[in-house]
Amino acid sequence: MNMPWTLDPDRLFDPNPGRRSVARRLYSEVEGLPILGPHGHVPPALLADPDATLGTPAELFIIPDHYVFRMLYSQGVPMEELGVPTVDGTPGEEDHRRVWQRFCENFHLFRATPTGLWLSDELINLFGTTEKPTGENAQRIYDHLQERLASPEYTPRSLFAAFDVEVLCTTDAATDTLEHHAALRAEGWGGKVLPTFRPDAVTDLSTAGWRHNIDLLSRTSGIDVVDYRSFLEALQERRSFFEEMGALATDHSATTPHTERLSGSEVEGIFSRALSGRADIEDAARFTAHLLLEMATMSAEDGLVMQLHAGSLRNHNTAVRRRFGLDVGADIPIAADWTRGLRTLLEERGNDPRFRLIVFGLDESAYSRELAPLAGHYPALLLGAPWWFFDSPLGMRRYLDAVMETAGLYNTAGFNDDTRAFASIPSRHDVWRRTTCDWLAGMVVTGVVDEEDAGDMAREFAYGLAKRAYGLQ
Amino acid sequence: MNMPWTLDPDRLFDPNPGRRSVARRLYSEVEGLPILGPHGHVPPALLADPDATLGTPAELFIIPDHYVFRMLYSQGVPMEELGVPTVDGTPGEEDHRRVWQRFCENFHLFRATPTGLWLSDELINLFGTTEKPTGENAQRIYDHLQERLASPEYTPRSLFAAFDVEVLCTTDAATDTLEHHAALRAEGWGGKVLPTFRPDAVTDLSTAGWRHNIDLLSRTSGIDVVDYRSFLEALQERRSFFEEMGALATDHSATTPHTERLSGSEVEGIFSRALSGRADIEDAARFTAHLLLEMATMSAEDGLVMQLHAGSLRNHNTAVRRRFGLDVGADIPIAADWTRGLRTLLEERGNDPRFRLIVFGLDESAYSRELAPLAGHYPALLLGAPWWFFDSPLGMRRYLDAVMETAGLYNTAGFNDDTRAFASIPSRHDVWRRTTCDWLAGMVVTGVVDEEDAGDMAREFAYGLAKRAYGLQ
Amino acid sequence: MNMPWTLDPDRLFDPNPGRRSVARRLYSEVEGLPILGPHGHVPPALLADPDATLGTPAELFIIPDHYVFRMLYSQGVPMEELGVPTVDGTPGEEDHRRVWQRFCENFHLFRATPTGLWLSDELINLFGTTEKPTGENAQRIYDHLQERLASPEYTPRSLFAAFDVEVLCTTDAATDTLEHHAALRAEGWGGKVLPTFRPDAVTDLSTAGWRHNIDLLSRTSGIDVVDYRSFLEALQERRSFFEEMGALATDHSATTPHTERLSGSEVEGIFSRALSGRADIEDAARFTAHLLLEMATMSAEDGLVMQLHAGSLRNHNTAVRRRFGLDVGADIPIAADWTRGLRTLLEERGNDPRFRLIVFGLDESAYSRELAPLAGHYPALLLGAPWWFFDSPLGMRRYLDAVMETAGLYNTAGFNDDTRAFASIPSRHDVWRRTTCDWLAGMVVTGVVDEEDAGDMAREFAYGLAKRAYGLQ
Repeated sequence: MNMPWTLDPDRLFDPNPGRRSVARRLYSEVEGLPILGPHGHVPPALLADPDATLGTPAELFIIPDHYVFRMLYSQGVPMEELGVPTVDGTPGEEDHRRVWQRFCENFHLFRATPTGLWLSDELINLFGTTEKPTGENAQRIYDHLQERLASPEYTPRSLFAAFDVEVLCTTDAATDTLEHHAALRAEGWGGKVLPTFRPDAVTDLSTAGWRHNIDLLSRTSGIDVVDYRSFLEALQERRSFFEEMGALATDHSATTPHTERLSGSEVEGIFSRALSGRADIEDAARFTAHLLLEMATMSAEDGLVMQLHAGSLRNHNTAVRRRFGLDVGADIPIAADWTRGLRTLLEERGNDPRFRLIVFGLDESAYSRELAPLAGHYPALLLGAPWWFFDSPLGMRRYLDAVMETAGLYNTAGFNDDTRAFASIPSRHDVWRRTTCDWLAGMVVTGVVDEEDAGDMAREFAYGLAKRAYGLQ
Repeated sequence: MNMPWTLDPDRLFDPNPGRRSVARRLYSEVEGLPILGPHGHVPPALLADPDATLGTPAELFIIPDHYVFRMLYSQGVPMEELGVPTVDGTPGEEDHRRVWQRFCENFHLFRATPTGLWLSDELINLFGTTEKPTGENAQRIYDHLQERLASPEYTPRSLFAAFDVEVLCTTDAATDTLEHHAALRAEGWGGKVLPTFRPDAVTDLSTAGWRHNIDLLSRTSGIDVVDYRSFLEALQERRSFFEEMGALATDHSATTPHTERLSGSEVEGIFSRALSGRADIEDAARFTAHLLLEMATMSAEDGLVMQLHAGSLRNHNTAVRRRFGLDVGADIPIAADWTRGLRTLLEERGNDPRFRLIVFGLDESAYSRELAPLAGHYPALLLGAPWWFFDSPLGMRRYLDAVMETAGLYNTAGFNDDTRAFASIPSRHDVWRRTTCDWLAGMVVTGVVDEEDAGDMAREFAYGLAKRAYGLQ
Repeated sequence: MNMPWTLDPDRLFDPNPGRRSVARRLYSEVEGLPILGPHGHVPPALLADPDATLGTPAELFIIPDHYVFRMLYSQGVPMEELGVPTVDGTPGEEDHRRVWQRFCENFHLFRATPTGLWLSDELINLFGTTEKPTGENAQRIYDHLQERLASPEYTPRSLFAAFDVEVLCTTDAATDTLEHHAALRAEGWGGKVLPTFRPDAVTDLSTAGWRHNIDLLSRTSGIDVVDYRSFLEALQERRSFFEEMGALATDHSATTPHTERLSGSEVEGIFSRALSGRADIEDAARFTAHLLLEMATMSAEDGLVMQLHAGSLRNHNTAVRRRFGLDVGADIPIAADWTRGLRTLLEERGNDPRFRLIVFGLDESAYSRELAPLAGHYPALLLGAPWWFFDSPLGMRRYLDAVMETAGLYNTAGFNDDTRAFASIPSRHDVWRRTTCDWLAGMVVTGVVDEEDAGDMAREFAYGLAKRAYGLQ
């Protein structure tokens, strides 16, 4: 292979010439729109610290990215050898060139995966790499990347501008002091980087360190959390603080979307057991089901958009969790019952014009069966973008096919990249923009929508839906 | 946009030239076949009364059609403002021009939805509308439609002939006196409009007004329903009456497809509790599960084809039900277990050559997993058309893809429009005919079936399957 | 139709010219690769006995193949009239020409089904039939087939060579003496036809004749099975024997993929109840859940690859089971919970480099939700080919679309034909090879993989994945 490594400029467009030319026209209208990132996991320090860098190639592409290292792990590469930090003190590979070598030797594992597509786009179009990674060329590519990463155009702040990110929302613990956000606001980045209120570490009683987190909550809120009532007050205080700091939304994670209102004495009893370390797994599940209702009530009152991500059984692999902690690629989806699960919440708030809920699921069979019908009825409910494993070309197609006919475009919330991998943000949005344009082109050439409407819809997918869903200015 | 608003004559055909030309050829053979409507909700009075009209444009397209107004409601348009009748006395919009205005202002919400496609087809091809609805042209279109609706070609009876409807089956309560059907028979329409026996209002113990319905059943059947035994006798009497009036089928709705045989004393106990107003939700579920077996037994004896529609959790939104009643767009599907649910029924009747059951579901994941394997084994079972949310171009494609390889064409029951919206009947059948022809064209160009077989199959999809499934002459 | 009956040489390739030409190029590279059959149900006697034949056309295509006769049964053809052997003494059709006649009269039932495609490929390309079967030509085709079947090129051993089968694994009861395999080894076929250890008849306590099977196990193992401990010893002995006879793998069937470790006293209690005929259905389910863990432990120790086929509710139709026994087309899939079901097994063995588990399911909604994420994380887990109803062109496409982006190619196990129908083996592999090549061609023309990578991947799909997954030399 002497040809330089490239990506097809027409990638993700159907090969039918008529459809492809419509897709190209639609894409040319949205390709350059600014990026809205209403949900994601970029550390705010990366942008708050003007001296922050993206690190080594291994730190950029492998070590913090469970999409990448879980695939290598599944094929027998120990995570220790990939430099993934351990929580049990096991030593890991510290030589980032060796980590990079292992990755390049196994680059074929990413064939036909979305991760492979993002990595290729970043390496080729962001970093100017001209060779597909192999064991042979690994160190040569490492040298090339190191050189680029050392240059001023590759600092996070330079890239933020180059990527044309209009707004980037981070995800922050309820107990976070938001000091990085304060620093960003002080520098005039307040409208560009916004915090999101994610209280799971204090609302999920089964969280490791929950009792400690409650102490932290008391400290940061200034409200002594001694019972359920003071707990709610402290949460309310934190929400107000987040709103002052620019937050537009909250985010909640739950194994299932079950919601249920407990009686005052039940919920107080559970909380009090939790405070004294006696809450069990059943208590935790019921508390989550109840607290989602409290969060919805607060959202109706304070106007923060509520996001719910449900359907993953976290930490499926205990040995891996013990050695490497959370969020290391061992979270596995389960079937979800949104229709019955969300019913109490929607009965309480689904018709409330002050309230907005955006939901994200991992059970694709619920798209057409439950999520699209719910979003196509309840005024308060929007369906979020295809999430996690389904943030992929084929995942997006299945989402569009299953959702749009029933929910309609306008009951969905556009795209978010949901990533920690800052440098991958444009690649992820590009896959969404290409895929939605091609899907719309399919609608045009089969006479379901005309090209004028398709143009409007393409702009909605790329920009408008997210802007309105999150109330971005 | 100065070009008149049109629909692509090749709509829903794949753009590949080879496939498209096969699709066109197949479609040209079935496009003009008569329409069979073996299941639907057209009020028989619409055809029995020679003076009946389709009403105003709002009455025709919006007010009675929950497919339409639920989409507007989901985007914050109050149903009162759409003229949807309330059951709690709340006043609603009475000016149909204003209702129409709201609809046209929001016509973009139907982009890429099946409702949008039917509406467009009706407006363009049935009513000769030349402009896509907008807030600006809404009243102009209203004037145009009013004029057409006032002309004699747009009476229901004229349209029935123009649509070339061979048979239209309505859906009628067990307690219905079928006077409209009697009138139709007296006028010689007996073979064209047929009743269907739908006993849910007396077999579902949780129906609002159930006790009253039982009194009505006593009255119409002439059998005093005082216990379970007389209840069955009354049902049998009504079935006989429906058969005399031309009925070919029964129809049953259930939240789940669960069937279970209760002991004589159990079922008598439940029925007696229900008569005295003491049956609970669990009683109602068990009674439904048992009564489906009784209905299957009666079908095996009297030859009425049994239809079962299962999988919707009705009235999900209590506030909406209180204000607007039933069937207003707030019924949401749930996961279904057909394999275990139907087992008792199929053990009892699945091999009985006198019995036929046609099932309809809303959990697409069950198509390939349960419904196609069941239909592909049991002689008595046929799989009905994609239902409700899935009566759509992409819904049909998923159905064909998931079902046909396992069930085979001949274990399915063709198409039915399942609609109250009389004027939309040809549009709905046309989507099915186009989609099945295009799907078959895909099979031809990939060498899976030859074009001769595909022609036979296209005629089966459009006409033959439904004719045989329901025993239409 | 005067043209001879043929199959399109480009069948299963997308009609887009660019995609089709890539598909052709990829297919030309894998079409001729040897066949690996790592899982199937061909009786070893067919190859061990040099005088074995394929029998009459009815014996070859209809009588033993539930894929075929269940479709005829579903359309009202009694299985007795198809010569399917009964277990209750009911006499059946003995004239194979009449069986063949019924089949040919109903050949249209197989339109667009995978069975129809295999049958067509066999009839046309293996047997040189030039007419599509009908009632009219049935006996003429019978004559033609009889003539071919009598010729020496159509003996199983000749076909084995002609098919270029490199390895064929059979499925054998734990109590099997493997005499046919011994005969094959004695003749030098040892590397070509290998046994697989399938212990269901002794591990599933609900098996009819289980107690008798345990006696057989005692006899064949030489270990007197008197309690749970001696049961495990006997199983271990049999596994060793199978390994000596060339086995590479075990195979296990379960209604659900549930695994659970019972305490020593629990499992001993269940086994002892079973020995005395007092185990109930719940005991059987828990025993299976536990025994899968024991089998995984033994696999980690002896290196036999473990296969698990789960998700079918066997013998759904009691009347059919009573008359015809097991495996007659009345097994219906159910929804499966792999994430929670396999958790205990994967916690115990999922990270064990000595262990390999290959899973096969029948709930397609679990592909993207559970199976691909699990296979994309656990080093020990591979996802098997689309199974049974999904061993079909569209089933394979759904599998590839749903699995590959998340699991990656290399966490899957290639193809196996899973068939009793020896003569259909090349047709089944050919459908897989064509479908994977076309799927890859779709990836190439949309710029997701380059053609060089696609070539590697096509060879993996056709040959490499299965070879490595099962440790074939």
